[in-house]
Amino acid sequence: MKIKFLVTLAVFWSVIVTVSYAQAEGVPFPEGYRNWLHAKTMLIQAGHPLENPFQGIHHVYANGKAANGLKKGSYADGSVLVFDLLNYVEKDKTIQEGERKLVGVMHKDSAKYASTGGWGFEGFAGNSKTERLVKDGGKSCFGCHVSEKAKDYVFSGLRE
Amino acid sequence: MKIKFLVTLAVFWSVIVTVSYAQAEGVPFPEGYRNWLHAKTMLIQAGHPLENPFQGIHHVYANGKAANGLKKGSYADGSVLVFDLLNYVEKDKTIQEGERKLVGVMHKDSAKYASTGGWGFEGFAGNSKTERLVKDGGKSCFGCHVSEKAKDYVFSGLRE
Repeated sequence: MKIKFLVTLAVFWSVIVTVSYAQAEGVPFPEGYRNWLHAKTMLIQAGHPLENPFQGIHHVYANGKAANGLKKGSYADGSVLVFDLLNYVEKDKTIQEGERKLVGVMHKDSAKYASTGGWGFEGFAGNSKTERLVKDGGKSCFGCHVSEKAKDYVFSGLRE
Repeated sequence: MKIKFLVTLAVFWSVIVTVSYAQAEGVPFPEGYRNWLHAKTMLIQAGHPLENPFQGIHHVYANGKAANGLKKGSYADGSVLVFDLLNYVEKDKTIQEGERKLVGVMHKDSAKYASTGGWGFEGFAGNSKTERLVKDGGKSCFGCHVSEKAKDYVFSGLRE
């Protein structure tokens, strides 16, 4: 009985430790991003090379440090950019926002994410803050963003 | 000579007073709105009943009081909502933001704008902060917004 209890306790703690470790290592969910600077918006239609998974209307939000980065073209550690992707509905000569598909995140930490240009990449499914979509440590994200090296790997620019 | 000087002075002062009066009366340009809450976005296409002047992609921004209003469905004096209308460019299976068409403003002041539901309406052309588009004291704007009386005359709702 005592052994069973100890085994249960060990399993319980290993789960706790594993989850904590994943949270410590992973790019954090960008709490409060809907109150950050709305930098720009773009719509990707069916037939675009990035249709899967990026078809939809996306808004890019920047925290304070990332807003400075957008002006300068380079980003201090702690900069966070959010790619907020929603489905869209086309009707009656309008295109309207639909359900959220994912929340993409770029989180600058030069040391921690040195192998991907200093940026941590993550995607959170739908409205979840825990269901993570990036499975390769951001390598595939970086493979596309590397084309924007001159802008510190960020596609977005700042519009007026 | 002295009379000419006095006449010039009188004309000068009347211009100053007239401009100041217009500024005091008009809905102010919403300085800093690009840093406010981005509430929602919608695209209006050619053929829509509001095509002229509202064809484009528009973003709705809310200052702090208006953000509370969006949650409650009624707005305190000092609430400001911005309808930021941009042209759009459709190419290569994307729709991208273009030049700014106008900045529409709703400014809540129950006493001052009592005849239009407590809201002052204004539009600023393109990137101008002074070229005003609303010529009828907001009556035509209110004529459409009156349908939303239950939501304090605001079309937009708050999305997650």
